[in-house]
Amino acid sequence: METVDVRAGGAAYPVHIEAGALDRVGGFLRDTLEGKRAAVVADARVAGLYGPRLRRSLREAGWTPAVWVDVPPGERSKSLARARSLYAAFAEAGVDRWTPVVILGGGVTGDLGAFAAATFLRGVPVVQVPTTVVAQVDSSVGGKTAVDFDGVKNLIGCFHQPALVVADPDLLSTLAPREYRAGLAEVVKIAITLRPELLERLEREVEAVLERDPGVLTAAVRACVEAKAEVVGRDERDRDVRAILNYGHTVGHALEGWHRGRMRHGEAVAIGMHAAAWIGERLGVTLPEVGRRQDGLLTRLGLKLRAPGTDNQGVSRNLKLDKKVRDRRIRFVLTLQIGGASVWPHVPGGLVRDAVLRVTR
Amino acid sequence: METVDVRAGGAAYPVHIEAGALDRVGGFLRDTLEGKRAAVVADARVAGLYGPRLRRSLREAGWTPAVWVDVPPGERSKSLARARSLYAAFAEAGVDRWTPVVILGGGVTGDLGAFAAATFLRGVPVVQVPTTVVAQVDSSVGGKTAVDFDGVKNLIGCFHQPALVVADPDLLSTLAPREYRAGLAEVVKIAITLRPELLERLEREVEAVLERDPGVLTAAVRACVEAKAEVVGRDERDRDVRAILNYGHTVGHALEGWHRGRMRHGEAVAIGMHAAAWIGERLGVTLPEVGRRQDGLLTRLGLKLRAPGTDNQGVSRNLKLDKKVRDRRIRFVLTLQIGGASVWPHVPGGLVRDAVLRVTR
Repeated sequence: METVDVRAGGAAYPVHIEAGALDRVGGFLRDTLEGKRAAVVADARVAGLYGPRLRRSLREAGWTPAVWVDVPPGERSKSLARARSLYAAFAEAGVDRWTPVVILGGGVTGDLGAFAAATFLRGVPVVQVPTTVVAQVDSSVGGKTAVDFDGVKNLIGCFHQPALVVADPDLLSTLAPREYRAGLAEVVKIAITLRPELLERLEREVEAVLERDPGVLTAAVRACVEAKAEVVGRDERDRDVRAILNYGHTVGHALEGWHRGRMRHGEAVAIGMHAAAWIGERLGVTLPEVGRRQDGLLTRLGLKLRAPGTDNQGVSRNLKLDKKVRDRRIRFVLTLQIGGASVWPHVPGGLVRDAVLRVTR
Repeated sequence: METVDVRAGGAAYPVHIEAGALDRVGGFLRDTLEGKRAAVVADARVAGLYGPRLRRSLREAGWTPAVWVDVPPGERSKSLARARSLYAAFAEAGVDRWTPVVILGGGVTGDLGAFAAATFLRGVPVVQVPTTVVAQVDSSVGGKTAVDFDGVKNLIGCFHQPALVVADPDLLSTLAPREYRAGLAEVVKIAITLRPELLERLEREVEAVLERDPGVLTAAVRACVEAKAEVVGRDERDRDVRAILNYGHTVGHALEGWHRGRMRHGEAVAIGMHAAAWIGERLGVTLPEVGRRQDGLLTRLGLKLRAPGTDNQGVSRNLKLDKKVRDRRIRFVLTLQIGGASVWPHVPGGLVRDAVLRVTR
């Protein structure tokens, strides 16, 4: 078993990565926390596939589900209304400040469930059991929680580090092809910005990645979690270096918000990375190699670099609500070379508009 | 000017306490944060009295209000619905992660405004300008944020330390008599649990306290803020010693939640302290001196020790959702002697029921 230890904002917790780890969640929980009752928040589709195994694992380790809430799949569930329904379920079940909330699902369920857990009784322990590529390589680690608001991604949220993360790469085998492919965009993001050696491996082993080879997947998840642990260890609250992980997310979130659930997060991030590299190259900041290798790999992985038919005005409106905006100025994460990225405060508005036009035409 | 420095959870911030400090908020803000735009969330009644002075102080120090939101007075404003309307106002005004939210008002506005600020863009800076006794001596310091949910006080919230607190004891002179009196319960709470010398002064100077003598008030606010700073410095997240500040709040919150805005927070806390001392005495934990002096002082300050006409079943239901509950067991903060309190895990259910009956009959 691979275990990556994360330290951030005074918290410390293990991320266990192993094929078959789903059946060990109960045991890991017993090793980490005291108690007998746990609440479960699960993506309804995932619960149909893997719920019984999670339930059995908890039971065998002496944990009773105080409440089990299924959440409809899809971005629309990342809402304050859905958070309210979790609050009501937690209150009804007598969830207390020592009751862990175990979250089974992808980024949507993870962000929503962790937001509700972070704000119930001012915070109860969170256990993430991520079941998608995005969640395993990125969103389950680092303590960001969020719901969307008024068509803007992640406008509402807070930081709340989990107590435990259990990533089982085997679970990725049942993802729909579109969902699996979309998630690979986050792997490419981490490879481009932080892990040149992972980028080389992905380029070499595109076929194995697309075939979901367990060895390649486990290695990729581990490399991404290690990279993320380093970054959030230095900057939990997204004040400086953590912004690197936002590469591709400026235009990406704005696009995704406009499409309101019809576009996958990773699909939007792939397009956002294309836009960022294009902007960076025009500014003379980004080496041409970055865009060439990044766009080439994304394309070979089956990801698109543009979203024709998107309203560019709507995307521009959303850009103004990006969390990196400061004094009404949109700031971009730009790569300098492979393995090096930084927040760039001086991107001319005209260039941003051109980039948005380029990817929405 | 008195300044108390608070350190909690990696944050550090000053609490300025001075008669007339309202006119210096803009300057303090300029000394603490960079920027030009601030959002303001104000209790509507307080804004009528003190809004123009706050606005002038901000303007003279070079700050423009990006948005000014008035919140109706009263506990009903501490709702998720009201938080939503703040999110919408912040988004509309282009509040970014560097835009401070200045909060003018009492505990309700402070808890609500800080919750919205803590969860907007995963947290923007908060400046508390508390205008009630409860807010100046207790709720504006320490980073607790909250809204109520389904009749349960503070069920939803998170920790988010302010960047700056400015307490002007002069503002207490315009409080309605009932509101002023209610707030004194929190002063007595801190005196009983943490500051024996403050208790003696209050007992000696009841008349001056009731006449709102500026010297006594400034000294009381400072003593309370110092006590609170010590406690939250040792335990930001309410894991152990901070629970002392919850003295009187177990039965208090349950009562207040049942009355849904018809009972002041401090009125409920006074009754809750009476219940806690009564329970503690029966268990042989609390010295009889505690209840005698505490109840005597509360009564001289015009506070009641019971709330006849309350439904004891409703109060008991709310008790189960207290944040100190663990494994369905209600835990009380009990004082041992003046200046010493602790969480007590083993209070028999029958004794809790008797205490609730005693204060609701």
